[in-house]
Amino acid sequence: MSDLLFPADPQTRAIARELYTQVAGLPIVSPHGRVDPGILADDVPFPDPAALLITPDHYLTRMLLSQGIPPGELGVRRIDGGPVQTDARRIWRTFADNWKLFRGTPSKLWLERTLRDVFGIDGPITYDTYDLIESRLVLPEFRPRALYRRFNIEVLATTESPLDNMSRHDKLDEDGWIGRVITTFRPDDVVDLDWLGWPDRVWRLGEISNCDTSTFDGYLDALRRRRRVFKKYGATSSDHGHPTAQVGVADDVAAIYQRALRGPVSMQEGEIFRAHMLMEFARMSLDDGLVMQLHPGAVRNHNRFLHRTYGRDVGGDIPQATDYTWALKPLLDAYGHDPRMRLVVYTLDEYTYTRELAPLAGVYPSMFIGAPWWFLDAPEALRRWREAVTETAGFYNTAGFVDDTRAFCSIPVRHDVSRRVDASFLARLVAEHRLTLDEAADTLMDITYSLPKKVFKL
Amino acid sequence: MSDLLFPADPQTRAIARELYTQVAGLPIVSPHGRVDPGILADDVPFPDPAALLITPDHYLTRMLLSQGIPPGELGVRRIDGGPVQTDARRIWRTFADNWKLFRGTPSKLWLERTLRDVFGIDGPITYDTYDLIESRLVLPEFRPRALYRRFNIEVLATTESPLDNMSRHDKLDEDGWIGRVITTFRPDDVVDLDWLGWPDRVWRLGEISNCDTSTFDGYLDALRRRRRVFKKYGATSSDHGHPTAQVGVADDVAAIYQRALRGPVSMQEGEIFRAHMLMEFARMSLDDGLVMQLHPGAVRNHNRFLHRTYGRDVGGDIPQATDYTWALKPLLDAYGHDPRMRLVVYTLDEYTYTRELAPLAGVYPSMFIGAPWWFLDAPEALRRWREAVTETAGFYNTAGFVDDTRAFCSIPVRHDVSRRVDASFLARLVAEHRLTLDEAADTLMDITYSLPKKVFKL
Amino acid sequence: MSDLLFPADPQTRAIARELYTQVAGLPIVSPHGRVDPGILADDVPFPDPAALLITPDHYLTRMLLSQGIPPGELGVRRIDGGPVQTDARRIWRTFADNWKLFRGTPSKLWLERTLRDVFGIDGPITYDTYDLIESRLVLPEFRPRALYRRFNIEVLATTESPLDNMSRHDKLDEDGWIGRVITTFRPDDVVDLDWLGWPDRVWRLGEISNCDTSTFDGYLDALRRRRRVFKKYGATSSDHGHPTAQVGVADDVAAIYQRALRGPVSMQEGEIFRAHMLMEFARMSLDDGLVMQLHPGAVRNHNRFLHRTYGRDVGGDIPQATDYTWALKPLLDAYGHDPRMRLVVYTLDEYTYTRELAPLAGVYPSMFIGAPWWFLDAPEALRRWREAVTETAGFYNTAGFVDDTRAFCSIPVRHDVSRRVDASFLARLVAEHRLTLDEAADTLMDITYSLPKKVFKL
Repeated sequence: MSDLLFPADPQTRAIARELYTQVAGLPIVSPHGRVDPGILADDVPFPDPAALLITPDHYLTRMLLSQGIPPGELGVRRIDGGPVQTDARRIWRTFADNWKLFRGTPSKLWLERTLRDVFGIDGPITYDTYDLIESRLVLPEFRPRALYRRFNIEVLATTESPLDNMSRHDKLDEDGWIGRVITTFRPDDVVDLDWLGWPDRVWRLGEISNCDTSTFDGYLDALRRRRRVFKKYGATSSDHGHPTAQVGVADDVAAIYQRALRGPVSMQEGEIFRAHMLMEFARMSLDDGLVMQLHPGAVRNHNRFLHRTYGRDVGGDIPQATDYTWALKPLLDAYGHDPRMRLVVYTLDEYTYTRELAPLAGVYPSMFIGAPWWFLDAPEALRRWREAVTETAGFYNTAGFVDDTRAFCSIPVRHDVSRRVDASFLARLVAEHRLTLDEAADTLMDITYSLPKKVFKL
Repeated sequence: MSDLLFPADPQTRAIARELYTQVAGLPIVSPHGRVDPGILADDVPFPDPAALLITPDHYLTRMLLSQGIPPGELGVRRIDGGPVQTDARRIWRTFADNWKLFRGTPSKLWLERTLRDVFGIDGPITYDTYDLIESRLVLPEFRPRALYRRFNIEVLATTESPLDNMSRHDKLDEDGWIGRVITTFRPDDVVDLDWLGWPDRVWRLGEISNCDTSTFDGYLDALRRRRRVFKKYGATSSDHGHPTAQVGVADDVAAIYQRALRGPVSMQEGEIFRAHMLMEFARMSLDDGLVMQLHPGAVRNHNRFLHRTYGRDVGGDIPQATDYTWALKPLLDAYGHDPRMRLVVYTLDEYTYTRELAPLAGVYPSMFIGAPWWFLDAPEALRRWREAVTETAGFYNTAGFVDDTRAFCSIPVRHDVSRRVDASFLARLVAEHRLTLDEAADTLMDITYSLPKKVFKL
Repeated sequence: MSDLLFPADPQTRAIARELYTQVAGLPIVSPHGRVDPGILADDVPFPDPAALLITPDHYLTRMLLSQGIPPGELGVRRIDGGPVQTDARRIWRTFADNWKLFRGTPSKLWLERTLRDVFGIDGPITYDTYDLIESRLVLPEFRPRALYRRFNIEVLATTESPLDNMSRHDKLDEDGWIGRVITTFRPDDVVDLDWLGWPDRVWRLGEISNCDTSTFDGYLDALRRRRRVFKKYGATSSDHGHPTAQVGVADDVAAIYQRALRGPVSMQEGEIFRAHMLMEFARMSLDDGLVMQLHPGAVRNHNRFLHRTYGRDVGGDIPQATDYTWALKPLLDAYGHDPRMRLVVYTLDEYTYTRELAPLAGVYPSMFIGAPWWFLDAPEALRRWREAVTETAGFYNTAGFVDDTRAFCSIPVRHDVSRRVDASFLARLVAEHRLTLDEAADTLMDITYSLPKKVFKL
């Protein structure tokens, strides 16, 4: 078995290996992801290696952009009609030529291990790797559902907008396929007033839910109904990506809503509206039991060039300093001790771990600390996270690893990395006589498997 | 000797062990604590194990609360008249049933080592542990003064309000007992205008000091007189717990004082008043020589449920981001180079170590960095603190470990953990050829014993 | 070969040693420094050991000040006419008496290694060390140009104000000396309206550039001309030290300029002016190709006592929390993807690494992360920097080590420390199977030598 990521000290490494061995084969519980359910619904062979592994992965395209290679050269679709590289082999070569940029990043780890463990391809990334992958992709055992089985996934949550008609999930159900693919209620596109086209989407929300969204009350009704529908598709949680963690009741929310239907509102009104809606969603959670996930702190579309040329969600968001202590207080005041409430809070700002997130989760029963998110889902960052939050919040106020990925083939390695980092952290506690080996093994089992199932009600 | 907390690498561990051995037996200097002096004044046997070890320890009760077990079930008195568990054995069982929550926390370390080293009880926490402890508590060698001697405490500072009549300290003095238990001047309850009942307390301050506190000048006089009284009870320092580190002279402070006597003032006025009072206390320090301790950054009573049900000081405070660079400037401008001034600054916000605290203490002669405080008084956090502040401030601008605890029996293990972490950090510097073994040993002796005595004028 | 700073684990240490060996002998590339070019221009023997090693080093004088020894006792010139110690031997003794204060700091490392490697003096710092150094300083091989050769410096950038007449650089050129000493354009003294005497300096700027600086346009012209002159003296970059990273176009900048010529302006106007000027300098960089260096976050002259008694730049600056995500956005919006732009951003606030600096540099092609700056140019801080930024930005969006020092003799050891820390970090990646040994060796070569040459256009 590989010693990847285990500490070099022989004694600690031996303990880490022993701990890891006990969880290496556990099924994958993925309560928070971005995989397109259509992949599994259609179950057609993956397209070429570039379209599978490079073009849709922002971690890869943003790193190449940082060195002057625009996403279009990697096949990313432009919204301005400009030229895009469509030759998959050339995309792969551009990528292979710049492979050294990824040294020390999780992308390198993920891709190398995916190639080795999923595709059976060892060694460095070269031009030839393309052909090797391509030769696998035509085989039946490399079709999505076959991989799902091979990956030993117990449950996979995808993420849909309330506007999604669920046709892809329908197809999965109709097929009678045994995999458990559930949805997650992600309403940002109908909550974020700053997001271009919001009035249209609210109108479509009314249509899909058969509610009159011309009033704020009708809008809330529509959201409630869609949550009920999402629950039928297996949803156990909602997911909210906001620029800040601000929550708060706004007396004039209905008036802001009306103004926003008629035209643009100020950034401040957008913030007030989002803060109010988090409180509304919390109340809905009390009723319908959906776990509430909040991942705040990204300045969306910070990179103006990317946004103009390629649109949203192409790696152009940048984190900002995030307050939790004051921002979450209204919600915690209201429902922090309500047994019906469960709130999983993520962060892009690790400089809140010991000061805010661990103390909050370490006292409010409704709150759990989500796994390190985007930019922080890497070995060093995962390690720092455990080192920082455990002393105040313990292991049992954390929510377990989430892969948060669109890259289906990378799901196993991402969970494996998390298990290895946790095993290494626990091994150190054992080596330093802070836990017994039995305690560490039991803890690792819990945080790998039992805890995420419990926290996300799976 | 146990290798608890020493790095696993054999060479570094051997050095750490050698360094630690030289300080393991040094007397405990505890210049900043919360022990009730009545415990030592009365010297009666401790009550049951739950009342001794669980009920008064917020680290324990908040962790159980975070998993839905309210403090009342652990015996914490409610201010709303609600039911409280009074069966000590049941409290212990509730605690033992949830012992796994504390894995990876300092509470686990402290309690296990206290049981082993103080009570001679080894092994995991079970229901039976209760009886084992109980059987010790009736013995004379487990009465407070006997333990004080066994703990090898050289000096223990307690913390009192200016309103305290010092009867407990009187009793200690009258008894002619040889232990050195000194007080600390902690005036927050008469300085914090937001704290309910402030006018009454100010009136009592006038009474106890025989001053007319209906004027701001009289109020200052009263504080000065109480400080003189506290010095008679051994005080060498004052202690100030504020939501921020803000210091600053306010021209209209007397007017704010008058308004506050008549009714509630704004949060902003409360902040201005506290900032001004820090400057006043600094001036008093110039005269009477009390070392000024400032521990800012806690949002008091953040947890509304806890505050309403159980009152203050039950683990419901949450840290917030804390500025020092600008907040302390007025005080440092005025007295940062005055040899009569000594200011020990603590933090709940470790994300200020290299940016603010170390650069400030590394240039202003009056300022020292206090040991990592609440939430940060744990092995990983103590290690990060040394790693962060030492390169800019060295060892000699830090103030030595403080236990800051109400839990009398945990004092030895808390100091022991600090000595082990410091020994481990210094061992690494030796292993990496950054210090000689002699330099490391001399440094460890200094920061364990000589430095706190010097900084706190003990 | 010494194992200084290598991790203690034998396997990792062996890898670190092997990696380090391959770069230990590489020439020094120093693209950002503060050495007085007059030292090399005049090439006279260094004065006494105190004037060479103690008096001009703020790291040393501020640490002694923090323990109550004023800079005047170490020979630092006072601007208030007060007494200054001029006996070099007594200065040395004061320093030697307090040598233990530096345990755990980089100053200790730098000085001990400088004495050993440059002067051949081993062992602790004592009174006698003075005489040993003095005996070397009279020898021809210890004159500045001889040391420059011995240090194996390939290029050394000094830093000059636009008001500098370049006479020292002229002398270097006239001599036909082979060393490559280039200048850097550092215009803070004519950009910072808060800096006393700004109108006079702007008048001198007009004079030296033969422009009419009574108008804002003339002022911009003058700066453009000086940049052209600086390029003739080898400059490949400009350097900007601002209290914040704020950039932004101000419509009324010409009016602020006029008001500032006539008298003091507000702090806010000063901030607006600096922000605007960063945008102007960015535009100039598009034209003349100078790499733009920004090191924000220092509150200048925080220490009022130091400022009043000793003036500027004597160690009295203190960092403050620094925002990059919003502050840099206007510049990145405008030129973040312009191939003519290159921006190297430093920080005094390490609590922005994963949240802001790495995500920004990891997507904007024009931006690079500068090496850890003042207070962070030490082993632990350098290690934390690599651990934090690499996972998001990789190695190739960083700019290579800069020594940023006035202390000529310490240049080799500072670069050596950086090489050792990088080798140790890479060795851990190898030991944990995250990089192959070949990848690590190639990376270390790049970040030590090739990358700084490329980023700084050397």
